[in-house]
Amino acid sequence: MGKEIKRILYGGDYNPNQWPKEVWKEDMRIFKDARINSATINVFSWAKIQPSEETYDFSELDEIIEMLNKEDYDIVLATSTGALPAWMARKYPEVERVDYEGRRHKFGQRHNACPNSEVFRKYSVALAAKLAERYASNPHVKCWHVSNEYGGTCYCENCEKAFRIWLRKKYGTLDAVNKAWNTEFWGHTFYDWEEIVAPNSLSEGLWDERSAFAGLSIDYKRFNSDSMLQNYMDERDAIRKYDKEAVITTNLMGTYKELDYFKWAKEMDIVSWDNYPAYNTPWSLTAMRHDLMRGLKNAPFMLMEQTPSQQNWQPYNSLKRPGQMRAQSWQTVAHGADTIQFFQLRRSRGACEKFHGAVISHAGTEDTRVFREVQELGKELEALSGLIPGSRNESKAGIIFDWDNYWGLEYTSGPSIDLRYEDQIHSYYEYFYDKNIPVDMIPVDADFSRYQIIVAPVLYMVKEDMKESLEKFVREGGILVTTYMSGIVDQSDNVYLGGYPGPLREMAGLWVEEIDALAPEQKNGVTMDGTHYSCNLVCERMHLEGAESLGVYEEDFYAGEPAAARNRFGKGRVYYIGTQLEKAGKAHILKMALEEAGVESLIPEETGLEVICRQQGEKKLYFVMNFKDEEQKLPAVFAGRKDLLKGTDLTEETVLKKYDVCLIEK
Amino acid sequence: MGKEIKRILYGGDYNPNQWPKEVWKEDMRIFKDARINSATINVFSWAKIQPSEETYDFSELDEIIEMLNKEDYDIVLATSTGALPAWMARKYPEVERVDYEGRRHKFGQRHNACPNSEVFRKYSVALAAKLAERYASNPHVKCWHVSNEYGGTCYCENCEKAFRIWLRKKYGTLDAVNKAWNTEFWGHTFYDWEEIVAPNSLSEGLWDERSAFAGLSIDYKRFNSDSMLQNYMDERDAIRKYDKEAVITTNLMGTYKELDYFKWAKEMDIVSWDNYPAYNTPWSLTAMRHDLMRGLKNAPFMLMEQTPSQQNWQPYNSLKRPGQMRAQSWQTVAHGADTIQFFQLRRSRGACEKFHGAVISHAGTEDTRVFREVQELGKELEALSGLIPGSRNESKAGIIFDWDNYWGLEYTSGPSIDLRYEDQIHSYYEYFYDKNIPVDMIPVDADFSRYQIIVAPVLYMVKEDMKESLEKFVREGGILVTTYMSGIVDQSDNVYLGGYPGPLREMAGLWVEEIDALAPEQKNGVTMDGTHYSCNLVCERMHLEGAESLGVYEEDFYAGEPAAARNRFGKGRVYYIGTQLEKAGKAHILKMALEEAGVESLIPEETGLEVICRQQGEKKLYFVMNFKDEEQKLPAVFAGRKDLLKGTDLTEETVLKKYDVCLIEK
Amino acid sequence: MGKEIKRILYGGDYNPNQWPKEVWKEDMRIFKDARINSATINVFSWAKIQPSEETYDFSELDEIIEMLNKEDYDIVLATSTGALPAWMARKYPEVERVDYEGRRHKFGQRHNACPNSEVFRKYSVALAAKLAERYASNPHVKCWHVSNEYGGTCYCENCEKAFRIWLRKKYGTLDAVNKAWNTEFWGHTFYDWEEIVAPNSLSEGLWDERSAFAGLSIDYKRFNSDSMLQNYMDERDAIRKYDKEAVITTNLMGTYKELDYFKWAKEMDIVSWDNYPAYNTPWSLTAMRHDLMRGLKNAPFMLMEQTPSQQNWQPYNSLKRPGQMRAQSWQTVAHGADTIQFFQLRRSRGACEKFHGAVISHAGTEDTRVFREVQELGKELEALSGLIPGSRNESKAGIIFDWDNYWGLEYTSGPSIDLRYEDQIHSYYEYFYDKNIPVDMIPVDADFSRYQIIVAPVLYMVKEDMKESLEKFVREGGILVTTYMSGIVDQSDNVYLGGYPGPLREMAGLWVEEIDALAPEQKNGVTMDGTHYSCNLVCERMHLEGAESLGVYEEDFYAGEPAAARNRFGKGRVYYIGTQLEKAGKAHILKMALEEAGVESLIPEETGLEVICRQQGEKKLYFVMNFKDEEQKLPAVFAGRKDLLKGTDLTEETVLKKYDVCLIEK
Repeated sequence: MGKEIKRILYGGDYNPNQWPKEVWKEDMRIFKDARINSATINVFSWAKIQPSEETYDFSELDEIIEMLNKEDYDIVLATSTGALPAWMARKYPEVERVDYEGRRHKFGQRHNACPNSEVFRKYSVALAAKLAERYASNPHVKCWHVSNEYGGTCYCENCEKAFRIWLRKKYGTLDAVNKAWNTEFWGHTFYDWEEIVAPNSLSEGLWDERSAFAGLSIDYKRFNSDSMLQNYMDERDAIRKYDKEAVITTNLMGTYKELDYFKWAKEMDIVSWDNYPAYNTPWSLTAMRHDLMRGLKNAPFMLMEQTPSQQNWQPYNSLKRPGQMRAQSWQTVAHGADTIQFFQLRRSRGACEKFHGAVISHAGTEDTRVFREVQELGKELEALSGLIPGSRNESKAGIIFDWDNYWGLEYTSGPSIDLRYEDQIHSYYEYFYDKNIPVDMIPVDADFSRYQIIVAPVLYMVKEDMKESLEKFVREGGILVTTYMSGIVDQSDNVYLGGYPGPLREMAGLWVEEIDALAPEQKNGVTMDGTHYSCNLVCERMHLEGAESLGVYEEDFYAGEPAAARNRFGKGRVYYIGTQLEKAGKAHILKMALEEAGVESLIPEETGLEVICRQQGEKKLYFVMNFKDEEQKLPAVFAGRKDLLKGTDLTEETVLKKYDVCLIEK
Repeated sequence: MGKEIKRILYGGDYNPNQWPKEVWKEDMRIFKDARINSATINVFSWAKIQPSEETYDFSELDEIIEMLNKEDYDIVLATSTGALPAWMARKYPEVERVDYEGRRHKFGQRHNACPNSEVFRKYSVALAAKLAERYASNPHVKCWHVSNEYGGTCYCENCEKAFRIWLRKKYGTLDAVNKAWNTEFWGHTFYDWEEIVAPNSLSEGLWDERSAFAGLSIDYKRFNSDSMLQNYMDERDAIRKYDKEAVITTNLMGTYKELDYFKWAKEMDIVSWDNYPAYNTPWSLTAMRHDLMRGLKNAPFMLMEQTPSQQNWQPYNSLKRPGQMRAQSWQTVAHGADTIQFFQLRRSRGACEKFHGAVISHAGTEDTRVFREVQELGKELEALSGLIPGSRNESKAGIIFDWDNYWGLEYTSGPSIDLRYEDQIHSYYEYFYDKNIPVDMIPVDADFSRYQIIVAPVLYMVKEDMKESLEKFVREGGILVTTYMSGIVDQSDNVYLGGYPGPLREMAGLWVEEIDALAPEQKNGVTMDGTHYSCNLVCERMHLEGAESLGVYEEDFYAGEPAAARNRFGKGRVYYIGTQLEKAGKAHILKMALEEAGVESLIPEETGLEVICRQQGEKKLYFVMNFKDEEQKLPAVFAGRKDLLKGTDLTEETVLKKYDVCLIEK
Repeated sequence: MGKEIKRILYGGDYNPNQWPKEVWKEDMRIFKDARINSATINVFSWAKIQPSEETYDFSELDEIIEMLNKEDYDIVLATSTGALPAWMARKYPEVERVDYEGRRHKFGQRHNACPNSEVFRKYSVALAAKLAERYASNPHVKCWHVSNEYGGTCYCENCEKAFRIWLRKKYGTLDAVNKAWNTEFWGHTFYDWEEIVAPNSLSEGLWDERSAFAGLSIDYKRFNSDSMLQNYMDERDAIRKYDKEAVITTNLMGTYKELDYFKWAKEMDIVSWDNYPAYNTPWSLTAMRHDLMRGLKNAPFMLMEQTPSQQNWQPYNSLKRPGQMRAQSWQTVAHGADTIQFFQLRRSRGACEKFHGAVISHAGTEDTRVFREVQELGKELEALSGLIPGSRNESKAGIIFDWDNYWGLEYTSGPSIDLRYEDQIHSYYEYFYDKNIPVDMIPVDADFSRYQIIVAPVLYMVKEDMKESLEKFVREGGILVTTYMSGIVDQSDNVYLGGYPGPLREMAGLWVEEIDALAPEQKNGVTMDGTHYSCNLVCERMHLEGAESLGVYEEDFYAGEPAAARNRFGKGRVYYIGTQLEKAGKAHILKMALEEAGVESLIPEETGLEVICRQQGEKKLYFVMNFKDEEQKLPAVFAGRKDLLKGTDLTEETVLKKYDVCLIEK
C-alpha cells in the first residue's frame, strides 16, 4: 500500500491551532531535535472547521498539513467529532446527552454528543467525509483517528427510541424480551415496545451502580456500545469512500468499562489506545491493559497517548521519575505497540488540561528534563525502528476478558459489593506477570486451540456456545482454570438452573451449593499441601463430583470442605478455585496448572525484572525492565549478549537499577 | 369464623407465575417434605392480572389457587399493588413518584406509585375488589396481604395538593399553620394555601436529612404516612366488602422510619412484618423490632418474610450458619410470632433478587443444607403447632417508641448529628434483653397502668396529653426513666418555653440549663456510687429542683454537677439520665429503677442466653436460646424439665451451643 | 453627623416579631441588665411587611422601633430582603434560583433570590426605599443592614442572559472572550453570545468543584459576585436617597469563597461580619478572618453576629466554655471590631435555628451561665467604651488574600486536589499569630508602600499591574515572600509562557521547571542550615537564576536541588518557598525574612499568649489573651501595669489561665 507505516511513529497530539504561527516554526525545530516524526492533528477542531451549520473552513488545517508534509511527518488525522461545536448545541439541544440522573446537558466539556441524535450523526459523518475528500490523497496522512476516546452513556428519548429498535432487531418479539429480562419478576411485563425506558436512576438504577433488572441494563450497555460503534463505523465508511489505503482507528482506553472493545476492534483497522496509569497503578495492571489492547485484534497496536511527564486529572499528579517514561514506553513496545505517541506535543495555555505534561512545557524550551528524556527515547526508537515492526508477541496462555461479564458481575446485587471485574482479572494476571510467562488477554470467542492453558476468573456469564468451546478445549488436552462466581448466568443474566457452576459443572466435576460472602473484616483460610493460605471475599461450598480436592477450608462450619479442586475432563483438566485466595495461594494453584499445561516462563530463573519477548520468525527480541525500587541482577541467560539500546555488553554481573531497560536479541 | 387460622403458618412468598408448569408439581412435592402449609401468592402480578386498562385475566391465578387448594394450603393472597404495571406508567406518568431531588420517575423498580395519584388509587382499589370478589369465598384464603412493604415518599404536585387539603383539615386556618410551623422565623409566613410546597431538597430540605422547618417536614411525614395508609384502607375496605372473615394485613418493616406503624396497626387486623437482619445486626436489635411489631397491636403477629439463607441487597450477604435460621425463627416465635414465612419458596432465576436465598435453591433439589434446615424446622413447628397460638408475651415494663419523636429528633438541626432515634432506643432496650426482663415496646398513648416501669429515652417531643398521662402514671406509683433530649418540643416541634425538660420538669424535679454536644473524639465521665463510667454524645447541665443526684460529671467545667438524678413524684419516681452513659452506666441506673419498680428477670440467675416466655393462662412456655459465640450453661431453674423440641431431659449440666434452642413448659 | 455611633454597640439580632407583646417588655428589662444598647431588627420580615404584591404594613415594625427608641437603643435596621416571601415565589417562580445541578428551586429556606430576577430586584429595592423613607429620620437608626449574609450562586436563564451582557461589557467582542477562555481548546469557540451558558454541572462543571474552562467559571464567579453586589448597591442607593447620615453595611462571612469582599467593601460604609468558629477551629484562623475583615477597608469593623453559646448547624455544637465567649469577644475587638453583636438576643422557639444559642435562652430567665457571661462582658465594654473606638491596628507586614486567586487555584485541575486556598494562606498567617507580629490581610492592589514585608502564598494568578507593583515594592526595599504555585496564570487563567513563576521569575531570580505533586502518604525533606524539615503536597524543581539557595531537598531524584531560595532585587529581597514545609520549616524562612525586613513582634519574648495592640496616636492598648489549654505567664514587659478589665495590678508573677484576658494601656 502506498500508505504503509514504515517506521515507529513517534509524536503525538499536536494542536498548533491553539498557538500563533510564530510558535509553529519553533515547534518544528524542537520536534526534529527529539526525532519526532508524527503528529495527531485536528482532534478538537469541529468548531473551527465548521463555524456554522452551512460553512466549512479548512484553511488553517491546510496550513498545518502543509507544514507537516514539508517536514515529512506521518500524519494521524482526527475527525474532530469528539466534542460538539457550541452553535450545534444551541441550535439543536437534542445533540447533548441526558445523563444517568435524567438531566439534559447543556453545551460543555467533550464526549458530549448523543450517539443517536440524527443531527449529530448527519453532521459528524459529513465532516468526516469532507476531511477525507480533501486529504485522502495526501500520502502523509497515514492514519485516520475517528472522534476521540468514545465513552459515556446517553439516556435521552432519542436513545430510548433507538433502544427499542435495537431490541426489536435482537429479540424479534416482546415476549422474547420479557423472557430474557425475566420481567415476570416484580410484574414488569411489557405489552408494548413504547413501555420500555432507558435504565437510569429514574427507572431501574439501584444505588450507584446496580440495577433492578440486570438483563435490561446489560442490554442497554450493549446498545450504547453499539450506538457509539455505529457512529465510529459511519465515519469510517465515509472516510473509506475516499481513502482506500490509510488505516482507520479510534483511541481506546484499556479496561474502560462502557464499551465492548472486542466488538469494536472487529471494525477497526488497528487498535490504538491511551495509557494513563496513576502514580500508584501497579505496573502489572498497565501490562495487562497493554495485553488486552493487543488481544483485541491479536495484533500489534498503536500507543496513541501517554504523558511525557505528569497528568492533571488525577487527584495527585506526580512527575514521572527520570527514566520512568522511557521504561514505560519500552514496556508498551514490549507488549505489542508499534508507536509511541504523546498527549501532547506542546502544553496548553489554558483550560483544564493546562497542567497536563507535554513534550514542550510552558517554558517553551528544549532545556527541560522532560524534553531531554523524550529526545533520548526518540533516538533509541529511531535506531531500532527496523527491528520492532513486524515482530509479535507469542503466548501459549490466555486469560479471558469479557465486557458482558464485566457488566453482568458489577450490575448484580449480591453476594458482595466488593466483586470488581477488573480487580479480579488482574489478580490472576499478576501471577503471569510476576513469573514472566507470556499471556494473551482473549475474548470468549477466541480460537482456544492456540493455547495450552486458559484462565477464566469470575466467568459469571457463560454465553451461547461457550460451554461447548470450553469443553472442546479441555477435552482436547487444554488446561482451564476458573473460579468462584463462574457459570452462574446466561447472556441475559438469568441463572443456569440445576446447580452452580451451571454449564461448567460437568467439566469442573463439582457442584457449588452455596456462596458465602465475607465482610471486609472477615477471613478464612485454606490449607493446601500442608501450607496455610488466607482467603476472603467469597467462600463457595462445593461438593466434588469427580474432581479431586486441592485444599480445604480451615474455619467456620465448612472447615474441612474443599476450597479448590481439579478435574480431569477428556485429555485436559479443569481447575476450580472456590474462594479469593491470597496471592501466594493463587500462585500455588496456578503453578500446578501451568506445569501441567507445560507453559513456562520466558527465562528459567525467578527475577524481579519484567521480561517480555517479541519475535519475528526465529528472531527474538527480549525486553528486560526493572520496575522495582531495588536494583535487580540481569538473568544469567542474557549474559554475553549485547544491550541493543546502550550498545553495552551484558555480563553475569550486570545489574539493572529502577527503570533500567535492556533490549536483547537472541 | 370459617377462616380462622388453626395452625402455625409455615411457608412464604411463592411465585409460580415465574416458572413453567412442570416446576409447580415439583414444588408441591418438595414443600410437602418440608411441612410447608402456606403460601403468599400474587405479590407482584398486577401486570399479568390486568394486562391493560380494560382487561383482567385471572386464569393463571385461578390455577395456582386451585393447586394450593388441593394441597390444603392456607393462602395469603396479596393484591399485587406494590408495583405498577408498565402500561400504566406509560399512559399516566402521574402514577410515578417525584423524588426528594424533585425528579419525576419513569417506569421501574417497585414501591413506585404516588399515593395521591387518582389513577393509581382508582385502579389499585379496583384490583383489590376484583380479587376479593373472585376469591373471598375460597376457605383457603385465610389472609389478605395488601400491596407490599409500603414505603418511600412522593413529592409531586398531586401530593402537594393533597397535603394542602390534609393541612386544612388538621389546622383549619392558615394562621394556625403559620403558628404551628413558626413561619415568622425567616419570614416564611403563608398567606395562601397554594404557597405551601412539598419539603424536598428543592425547598426546605437541609443537607441530606435535616429540614429548615421541622414542623412542616414532620407534618409532611405524617401526611405521607397517612396517604399510604389511606391506600391500604381503601384496598382493605374493598376486600372487606366481599370477605367478612379473612384477616387483612400488609407486611411492615420493623423500625422503618417513614411510616407511623402505631397508627397503621389500628387499621390492620393483624400485624405482619419482614425481618432482615444484616450479618452484623445485634440479636438484641432484632428482638427489639419483634417486640415493637408485637407492641403495635399488643398482640401476636405474623412473620411474613425472612430469608432461609442469605440476602442479596446487603453489601455483604453472608450465609446463615447452620442452626442460625432455626434459632432466629424460634426467637421470632418467642417474641410473639404465630407464623414463620420465608421470602421465598423458590429462588428467582433473574432480576435483582436472584441471589436472595429461598427454600428451593437454583439447584432445584431438596439436597441442600438450607432445605434440610427448613424441613427440620417445619417438623418442629408442626409438632408444636398446638402449643403456640393463643399464648402471649406478658410484661410489666414498657419502652416508648414513637414515630413523631423519630422524625422530630432526626430532622432537628443541633446539638449533634449523631443522635439517631433507633440507636438511642435500642441502647436502653439492650439492658432488658441482656437481663431477660420481658419488655413491651409501647406507643405514647398506651395504657400506662399496665406497667410498673416505663422507659422513655430521648422523649424529645411531648405531644398533647402526654404530660398528664405520664404524671398520672408516676403519681400512682409508676417508675419513669427518661433521658437527655427529652421534653424539648411540642407536636409541632416548637420548644416548650420555661426551661428543659419542659412538661417533664416538674416530675423530674430538675431543670436542664444547657445541652453540651461532644464530638466523636471527645468524652467525659460520670461517677456513680464510687464507680467511674464514661459518657459522650451530649452532656446536659442540670439543676436539681427536688431530685437527688445519682452521679456527677468528672471533667470539664461542669465537673461535680449532676449527670443523672431521680425524683419522687406522688407515689412513683422519675429517673433522669443527662448524658449518654456507656453500657455499664446505663445498667447501673436501670438496675436501680427496675428494683424499685419490682420488675424482675424471667430467671433468677445471670446468663448469656436469651430467655423469653409466652403464656396462656397458667401454662408458661420458655424459649431458651444461645446467640453467643460461646456455649452457655442452662439456668438451674430449668433443670429437671424436658426440651419440647428435642424431647431430651434437661439437667444442671445441660449446655447450649451457639444457636441451640430449648423450649420448656413450666 | 447626627448619626455617629458613639459607643461600642452591644446587642445583636432581635426578632420580637416572633414573640407575643408581653415578652417584649421582659426583653427590655433583661437586656438592660446586660448593658445591651443596640438591636439588629427586621432581618427576616419581608413577608410581614409586604404581605402581598400591593400591600405594605409597617405597624409592627413601628412598634418595635418605638420601643427601642424609648430605651435609647442604637438600631441596626435590616431591609429584610435576605429571604423571599412565599407569595412572590408562587406568583413569580423566576425569583427562585436554579442550582448547580440545574434544578429550579421552589419556595424554601433563605438566600434564595436569583440576583438577576427583575421581579426580585424591583421589589427588594422598593422595600429598602420604603423602609428608608419611613425610618431615615429616626436618630436611633444608626446603621442600615442590607439583606443578610449574601451568598450562593444562581444558574438560571436570567442569569445566563445577564452574564452575556456582563461579558460583552468586559470583553467587547466574542473574539476577546474566546481568547480569554482559550476556547480553541476542545473546540469550544463561540460564534454567538447566545451560545454561552452558565457553567454548572450540566455544562463545564467537573466533579464537584473543578471546571473544564476555569477562565469561564472564574468569570461566572466574578459575575455572580457582581450581581449580588449590584443588589446590595441598588438597595444602598435607595436608602441613601432618604438617609444621608447612617452607615450602610451588610454582614459578610470571613473567608467565604463566593463573593469578592474586597470589591464589595468599596461599596460599603463599614464592614460587618458574622464570626462562627466550629469547636475545633484554630484561634489563629479566627484571628486571620478578623484581620481580613479589617483589611477589606483597612479600618475597624462591626462584629454583626456571634453566638453567646452554642451553634446549631455544625455537626457537633459544643457549648462555649466559661470565659470563652468573653475571650473570643475581646479577640474580636483586639483585631479591630468596634461592636459586639450576637445572633441572637432571644432564642427561637421553632424552625432550624431553635438550638442556636442566644442571650436569653428557652428558659427565658437571666439565671443562666450564658446570660451572666453576657452581662459581665456588657459591663466591661460599657466601662471601656471610651477607649476603643477611634483606635486602630497598625502593621508593617501584609499577607495577600485575593478572591480571584481563591477561585483560580481551586478550579484548576492539577497538580493536587489538596491545594486549598484558605488553608494555604492560614498556614503562613499562623507564624505571625504565634509570634505576635501584627499583620494586615491585604488585597493585590493595596498600597504596598505601607509595608516592609509582604507575604503572598500561592500567588497563582498574577493579574494586570501586579508584576509592576510587586517589583516596585521590592525594588524600593521591600521583602516579598512567595511560594510554590505562584506566578502561573493571568487574570483569565491562562499560563504565563516562558517558565514559572512567570512575571515573578525575574524578581525571584529563579525558574521553576517542574511541579511534583505528592500524595497524602508521601513526603520529602528539606535541609536548611543543617536542620531537617519535612515537606509534602508539592515539590517544585527550581533553577537558580541569581537567587541563593536556602535549603535543598533531601530525597528523590531532585535531592540536593534547591527547595527554597532568596534573591536580591533592587533594594529589597524576594523569598521563594518551593514546597509545603512543615510549620517549623516555614518559621525558619519567615523568621529570616522578617528580620531582614526589620519587622518585630509586639513583645520581645516568646509566649503562648495572643498579644494584639490597638493604638490611637501615642496611646497603645494591648490585648493579652490566653487561648492555650495551659496557663501562661504574663510577658515581663507588662509587669507593673494595670489590667483595665479587672483593675488589678499586673506583676512578673501574673499568670493567665485559659480564656483569661488582660487589657493594658502602655
